Formats: sequence, C-alpha cells, structure tokens
Amino acid sequence: MNPGDLSAALRVVPGTTVDLGAVDPAATYGRRKETAAQELERDLARLRILQERLWAENRRRVLVVLQGIDAAGKGGTIEHVMGAFNPLGCPVHGFKVPTEEELAHDYLWRVHARVPANGEIAIFDRSHYEDVLVVRVLGLVPERRWRPRYEQINAFEQLLAAEGTTILKFFLYIDRDEQRERFQARVADPEKRWKFRMGDLETRRRWDDYIAAYEEVLTRCSTPVAPWFIVPANRKWFRNLAVAQILADTLTNLDPRYPEPAEPIPPDLVID
Amino acid sequence: MNPGDLSAALRVVPGTTVDLGAVDPAATYGRRKETAAQELERDLARLRILQERLWAENRRRVLVVLQGIDAAGKGGTIEHVMGAFNPLGCPVHGFKVPTEEELAHDYLWRVHARVPANGEIAIFDRSHYEDVLVVRVLGLVPERRWRPRYEQINAFEQLLAAEGTTILKFFLYIDRDEQRERFQARVADPEKRWKFRMGDLETRRRWDDYIAAYEEVLTRCSTPVAPWFIVPANRKWFRNLAVAQILADTLTNLDPRYPEPAEPIPPDLVID
Repeated sequence: MNPGDLSAALRVVPGTTVDLGAVDPAATYGRRKETAAQELERDLARLRILQERLWAENRRRVLVVLQGIDAAGKGGTIEHVMGAFNPLGCPVHGFKVPTEEELAHDYLWRVHARVPANGEIAIFDRSHYEDVLVVRVLGLVPERRWRPRYEQINAFEQLLAAEGTTILKFFLYIDRDEQRERFQARVADPEKRWKFRMGDLETRRRWDDYIAAYEEVLTRCSTPVAPWFIVPANRKWFRNLAVAQILADTLTNLDPRYPEPAEPIPPDLVID
Repeated sequence: MNPGDLSAALRVVPGTTVDLGAVDPAATYGRRKETAAQELERDLARLRILQERLWAENRRRVLVVLQGIDAAGKGGTIEHVMGAFNPLGCPVHGFKVPTEEELAHDYLWRVHARVPANGEIAIFDRSHYEDVLVVRVLGLVPERRWRPRYEQINAFEQLLAAEGTTILKFFLYIDRDEQRERFQARVADPEKRWKFRMGDLETRRRWDDYIAAYEEVLTRCSTPVAPWFIVPANRKWFRNLAVAQILADTLTNLDPRYPEPAEPIPPDLVID
C-alpha cells in the first residue's frame, strides 16, 4: 500500500455530509500493528528532514489542528508524532477554557495570536473549533452567535492559507467503549489519575450531542485549503501512523528547499 | 563517575572571577565518545519522565538559557537534547535582532513575555544576555546604559526564581579554531550554507571582545538561584551529554510529583 493512501482515504471531501456512524474508529486500512513501529519510525525520519528544510526555507507555515473527544489521544499524538520534530520551529499550544481577557475579545483573537510564523509547524491542542463544539453543546452562547461561526472560521482559515499557511485538521475518533476503557484505566493509574476530572463524566453523558456537533464541523469546515481528516483512533498505533503519514505527505508536497544564503558567499571563501 | 559530577564541575561558583583562557573547550571530564550515545539516551529517558511529572504537577517552572558564540551549537543542543521533551510543555524561543516594537520597550520586556508558565520548561536560544554581549561589543547603547544591566538582570532572575522558576544558564564554549572549522564546513555544505552570513566573519574578528564580554557575564551573573554553567563544546557529544545531565540532575532535585486529581475520585468509580 503506498504511503499516499491515508491522506486520500481519511480526508473529508469538501461538500460531503459526514455521518460518523458510518466510520469505523477501529479501522486500520490494511496496516498491521507488527510493522507499525518500524513504519512510523521511517515516517518520522522523513518528517524531521522536511521540518528542517521548512525551517531553513523560512517562507511558508504549517498549522496542525488536533481535535477529539476526551481521551481520544491528542496528547499521545503530540508526544509520539510531533515529539519527533525539533522543538525550535514547532510551537504547541493547548487551548483551555478562555481567560477573562480572552473572553473580552472575539473567539478568534486568542487563536490568531498563536498561528505559525514563517518556517514553523504550529500545533493546536484543541482550537477555535471548541467555539462550535463545547460552546454549542453547553449553550455557552446563543445559537444566533455560534451558528455564523462555521463560515467565519472558513473565512479565517482561507485568509491564513492565502497568506502562506498550509492547514491540516485531524479529528481523532474513538468510540464510546474505547473512551470508557481509557477513563477506567486513567482512574486506576496513579500516574494518570491527574488527567481525569469528574466533569469528564458529564461530557461523556453528552456523547451524542458532541458527535452531532463534530459531524457539523466536519461537514461544513472541510475546505480545499483547510481539510479535515477523520483519524480512526481506537488503536493508538494506527492513529500515530495516520497522522505522521498525512503530515509527511503534505510536507513532501510542499517540497521545502534549503535557501541560498541571504548574501552571496564567495565560492573560494577561506575562514581564517 | 557519578552523574552529579558535571553539575558541580561546570557550574560557575557565584563570586568567582571567570577566566575563559583557563577553561579547556575540548575537555570531556573522563567521559568517552564510545559510550556517550548510550549514556545520553539514558539521561534523555530520565528527562522525559521528569518532564511529564513537572507538567502534570503544574506548579513549578524551568527556564533554560542557551548562549554561545556563533556555531557553538545552540541549535544542535536544542535538537539533540531538548528534542527529547514532549513539545507540549517545552516552548523554545529564539531571540533575534529586536523588532521596532521590542526596541520601543525596555530590553527585558520581550524576555519577560516568554518566561515559562507552570509545568513548562522554556528554552531561550539567545536571551537578555545579548543586551550585555552584542550590545556592548558593538556599542549599540552607551556604557552608562548597559553597565547597570548585570544587576538588573540579576534582580529580574531573582524575581523569577522567587516566584517558582528554576533557572539554568549554559554557555557553550568553543575555541576559535573550532569555529573556523565549523564555518568552513557550513560554507561547503549546501544544506548548511543558509546558516552562514558574511556578517558572521565580522563577529569572528571581534572574538576577544566577545570573550571579554562573556567573562563579565559569567563573573557577574552566576548567582545561587540562576547559575551559569560553562560547557566545553568543541566536542558535540560531550556538550549534549553535559547539558542533558545537568538538566536531569536539576529536575531530579526538584522531584516533581504526579498530583492528586483536582476533585476527589471515588475509589470504586465505575465508568459506564
């Protein structure tokens, strides 16, 4: 199977109505766990080279958005995939409950402040999509406020793209049983208990509302310049492989190049 | 040799007058290149665990300052040592020539904006020390402006420390011959030429001025709460090992712990 396949298979074709009930969160697209570690290591090696070139080129930008329900594996993806990057040039920002200052601005204000600069690959652990997910499910603003946001977000992402940013958005998709198992394991593990909050159970009870909200995001905000990818994430090894391959394919297509020096260097320069 | 040795051996004892002429940039303190990769891997594994705990604990902060003359290996250290960290929780900032907006503020303004938050290990690739290095050597401000900065910097770092930040400052020390070889190699390598600027030769001609400026920094700004370490950096493998071990020893002493959950979790909680 050629490495390009997952980019095409997992991408939400703009204009498609997404039904997550028809997606298998345990799918592996013919990949095998036995060879996954080796395959991942190869992709990460490619990614390291491509990132260095993107950084050296200092001309284009990449934004990676990670979304998923609690315990879907956003943190694990950052650790095991983005962990391969040189941290200089790979800022990661986790968007939390907005502060008072953030709430005193439009919802894209804090997001815009964190978009990547030239040469950077910026990672968003959650993002502006929370403003049509948790905000919608909990009714934190009235519908007349969140309803226009799909178009506002598309316009914002189109601006970023037009100005030189490549955007990739990953929805890490696990099912309800998988979340139960992960929560149960977190609670039992003294090194993971701190990640669990009793409030996570309230969110879990709203599962169907969140899925519906995600379906609308995936349906309305997968655009040619800022596609969503639905990553089956029940199996962590497949999730990592899929994100790494899609990233590597995207960067390969960008084909970043080491630039010429800012001023010409004499060919026979001898340093003394 | 026990791993604690390098922290003590390379630390500038506060109050010492530093003479870099007496420091061997090729020193390896009994470490051997043959076993360095394995030793580094062990330290990086320790660092990953300690960083995760620091992040989980979400209570204390670590600031790592990297300084060195051009080609001393700041970038390589970030790639090979800090590259082991989970990028979430390890922001890296490279301080460049100040922008117009930055110059319109005091020199610590842009630096303060980048100090680590709870749980973070922030890396400064160059720092406020440039304001008593390049600024002094090139006379970008008069001496009556830069002369008081040593004390101002000490006061600033003491504030950070008092508020919960552990500060480590590494001076990567190569000699003039080593820089010549690295520059010559950069110029010859199409994948590295972009890092070289003709202006680097001007800085090189001022070698003695920079060394004198560094000696004053190391002499005046190594304090109990924010020590400088002089890292012999002619040998990249030793440089990486030294920085990794000092970081790991420091984090081990901090002894970060996984916290209890914010709200108590019932011991018999069953997720359904």
